[in-house]
Amino acid sequence: MCLGGKTIMNNLVTPLLSDLYEFTMVYAYWKSGRHEDASVFDLFIRENPFGGEFTIFAGLEEAVNYVKNFHLTEDDIDYVKSVLPTADTKYFTWLKHIDCSHIKIYAPKEGTIVFPMIPLLRVEGPLGIAQLLETTLLNLINYPSLVATNAARMKLAVGLPAEVQNIFGTQAGKNKDLLEFGLRRAQGPNGGLTASRYSYLGGFDATSNMLAGKTYGIPVKGTLAHAFVSTFSSLKELPSSVIITPDGKQTEFVSNVLDFRKKLSAGNSHEGELAAFIAYAQAFPKSFLALVDTYDTLKSGVPNFLAVALALHAAGYPPVGIRLDSGDLAYLSKQTREQFRKVSNQFRVPFENLSIVASNNINEATLHALTQQGHEIDVFGIGTHLVTCEAQPALGGVYKLVEVNGAPRIKLSQEKAKTTIPGKKEVYRLIDQHGFPMTDLMIRVGEAPPKVGEKILCRHPFEEAKRAYIKPSDVKLLHQCMWDGKRAAEFPTLEQRRQFVLEQITSFRQDHLRYLNPTPYKVSVSESLYNFIHEIWRREMPVAELE
Amino acid sequence: MCLGGKTIMNNLVTPLLSDLYEFTMVYAYWKSGRHEDASVFDLFIRENPFGGEFTIFAGLEEAVNYVKNFHLTEDDIDYVKSVLPTADTKYFTWLKHIDCSHIKIYAPKEGTIVFPMIPLLRVEGPLGIAQLLETTLLNLINYPSLVATNAARMKLAVGLPAEVQNIFGTQAGKNKDLLEFGLRRAQGPNGGLTASRYSYLGGFDATSNMLAGKTYGIPVKGTLAHAFVSTFSSLKELPSSVIITPDGKQTEFVSNVLDFRKKLSAGNSHEGELAAFIAYAQAFPKSFLALVDTYDTLKSGVPNFLAVALALHAAGYPPVGIRLDSGDLAYLSKQTREQFRKVSNQFRVPFENLSIVASNNINEATLHALTQQGHEIDVFGIGTHLVTCEAQPALGGVYKLVEVNGAPRIKLSQEKAKTTIPGKKEVYRLIDQHGFPMTDLMIRVGEAPPKVGEKILCRHPFEEAKRAYIKPSDVKLLHQCMWDGKRAAEFPTLEQRRQFVLEQITSFRQDHLRYLNPTPYKVSVSESLYNFIHEIWRREMPVAELE
Repeated sequence: MCLGGKTIMNNLVTPLLSDLYEFTMVYAYWKSGRHEDASVFDLFIRENPFGGEFTIFAGLEEAVNYVKNFHLTEDDIDYVKSVLPTADTKYFTWLKHIDCSHIKIYAPKEGTIVFPMIPLLRVEGPLGIAQLLETTLLNLINYPSLVATNAARMKLAVGLPAEVQNIFGTQAGKNKDLLEFGLRRAQGPNGGLTASRYSYLGGFDATSNMLAGKTYGIPVKGTLAHAFVSTFSSLKELPSSVIITPDGKQTEFVSNVLDFRKKLSAGNSHEGELAAFIAYAQAFPKSFLALVDTYDTLKSGVPNFLAVALALHAAGYPPVGIRLDSGDLAYLSKQTREQFRKVSNQFRVPFENLSIVASNNINEATLHALTQQGHEIDVFGIGTHLVTCEAQPALGGVYKLVEVNGAPRIKLSQEKAKTTIPGKKEVYRLIDQHGFPMTDLMIRVGEAPPKVGEKILCRHPFEEAKRAYIKPSDVKLLHQCMWDGKRAAEFPTLEQRRQFVLEQITSFRQDHLRYLNPTPYKVSVSESLYNFIHEIWRREMPVAELE
Repeated sequence: MCLGGKTIMNNLVTPLLSDLYEFTMVYAYWKSGRHEDASVFDLFIRENPFGGEFTIFAGLEEAVNYVKNFHLTEDDIDYVKSVLPTADTKYFTWLKHIDCSHIKIYAPKEGTIVFPMIPLLRVEGPLGIAQLLETTLLNLINYPSLVATNAARMKLAVGLPAEVQNIFGTQAGKNKDLLEFGLRRAQGPNGGLTASRYSYLGGFDATSNMLAGKTYGIPVKGTLAHAFVSTFSSLKELPSSVIITPDGKQTEFVSNVLDFRKKLSAGNSHEGELAAFIAYAQAFPKSFLALVDTYDTLKSGVPNFLAVALALHAAGYPPVGIRLDSGDLAYLSKQTREQFRKVSNQFRVPFENLSIVASNNINEATLHALTQQGHEIDVFGIGTHLVTCEAQPALGGVYKLVEVNGAPRIKLSQEKAKTTIPGKKEVYRLIDQHGFPMTDLMIRVGEAPPKVGEKILCRHPFEEAKRAYIKPSDVKLLHQCMWDGKRAAEFPTLEQRRQFVLEQITSFRQDHLRYLNPTPYKVSVSESLYNFIHEIWRREMPVAELE
């Protein structure tokens, strides 16, 4: 059923999905004969999102697909012409013939945990072409990485799956499912699809978005909304009073429900709501899950659910559970679980562990607060705060020139954090004796790489006093060539990448990933790169003259 | 050049761009024979975004296009089947044949200023079809209205165009241009396009997004980035030292620039930056605008710009200006203007009013703060905070059933603000003697509409004590039929709708629109609707029993 992202995206992800200034700059490069200069750009972030200390790298496959298919159509060229009417017409001839066959892209695997300053993409190739890729690559990496990180943080907040959670001793048994419900609050149609895809990558378990299910093969989930419940006002609206049992026989259902309702002393529950639950159970006897807060959760919704669930159980179908969509979710879930327990005892039915789904305006902080105060929720449906990344709605990834024709380039700034690390670099992840990553070490391409068991000086890129000797127990080169001008790397499936994110999360020390006061993970540079940066910095930065 | 939004969007905006629960609910409607019931849904918001007291209604044309083209393909049906394997196969036959020929949509004109509780869309038609539209309609209205409102608020913060600003006495002369730069921080490709389109609708003047320019005919703007400046390290990299004058002659340029640099006592300015500015001026002599903060704004960027600008002026081209992208924008813009003034006097050139563009992480609060402290910025480029709507990244629009088969439906809630206003309603905007809207009055369809010059009792929908007699000087029916099952209303062009938004903004009392402590605009109901709501409320809400 998975049709692949490419088909559906291609008519938007074109070279024109870009800022005008890329085309004006490249015209000026072309005009001054520099468009073929050998350039290196780094795409990187300056800080981790959400006040955290890690970022999930996502969007790579789409980025590589874009580069692979990079081509301006006649129609595109006509538009560029109309915007740059004074430009030399030979420029447009050049634009018409460019592609990415001389571009190389190096990157960590999609789903890798990454950190500020290290290149997420290293793009090498002719200046005029590498420059044109900027905006589109940022669009394709920034939001996917942001929402995948948001999803992973929420997954951490509710506990990892049992098979990977041992490492987090305190969280055992806390594993809950997370459903993405954000389509209606996303930035348009594709904003919704992008959110679904990368929330799943980051660790969510399913989406409500049908088109995301169809396009990417993500499991879809969903039952009913308030509208369904409120269409019914009385039992008289039910066209049928029976249900078909699992072995195909017709059996009386409505009067059974009413009997149980009486036994539950729930005669005051809302009759329209009861009718709605019956109709839904008749349609989906194998997956009966009721939204219980249309009128009054504990006085009407839950008793109505239980009456229908008991009749369904009697007819041979195990009911699934309820969904809460307003009110105090901790309190209501506990009270509901209590009613489930009572009914289990009273009627000797296995209702104690029926599913409780909750879904009202949940964010990462709510998940932590709920865990702290205790609750009985099994599944969280999260929309707005997941897809909008409300706590930080943009990842500030940037794309900066670091080398031209073999010479390092730097962007200085009044704001120190905006300074770039010049030159073509490799990144090694150094692993400690317990198997945990200790630091990401950047070195200049050509320098001797760090070796297992050998001490190496690692320095903070800007602060002289911060440095340490590190003897790694293992060393991993972070970047691989993902596009060599002809061929794209083979990408694992979305499902495999999601699994890789979970592995990444368990491979890091928990204190880097925790919600409150996480420990910063150190990104360092070699002695040689440190000296290189500071030499260039001294050369390029004008000395202030005060009078 | 405008290709129209439809072409580019259609492969995403399909009936599957929806939550699964719409399909499960509709199956249950279908199963209980209710899918043909006559239903009315209201799409409305519960509060205005950004702590303000108004909302710009946007997204209507796309919503109507979606309804017009509503159709499930064989492929879509196969996917729905795979997700609902136990459903009756006749359901899929029904799904295959549905369209919106029995749906009617009523709405205010796109660009209208709207308020909480009033329907933004009233959708009438068969329950099973009207229900299926929910998620997609919310996706198509929520974010567009949010970002258009954000854009309009930013436009208000910098002053309206001269022709409409008289009404805001204090803001005369403050009119500035706003450019949308958000593509790289949007939710994927279409998130970026949607942001560009509706920012323009809300009052922005141009976008950097080429595809938005091509698709929607929005003016595009852009010049150069830091990368361009930092590719150059010396004047030796310039392939040519000349420039072509407006009358087609070749004239020496670089040595002229160096002369002016000496006269400006700017011999210490960064040579690579100077080379970059020269190269850019050679490529775009008619539109020379330089990014001046790559090394040091006041010591290098501005003097380098001025040296090139003076030589360009001497060659017969008026320079355009500079862009600031970091640092204290108020201070730097004033200092830059001061340098412009000095040079104007020293060299007798008209440089005093050259353009100063600013673009570093600007939001609505920054715009107000800058206005307050004084600045010399002419144009603001805004990206992240505009497209992500960081101050409130989602508009909480909802889609609620208000009537079935002529009977009113209500959704009660533990949270009062989540209660809906039942029944099919009309909305009249009542205008006071000065021409300003006073209140939006909702009445039941069939009630006598309010009349000019006649006193009518307007009540708060929920609070008994809040009521007033209003004698309107004018009365405007807010909703029109936008889709009647066969034909869509004619939509004005994007440009016309943008103009309509500006008109709307000037037609309201300024105190409703202001940034600090805006006055809430009153939304009221007729006496008859008030009684109707409270009667239903009493009937449906279970009375608590305490023990």
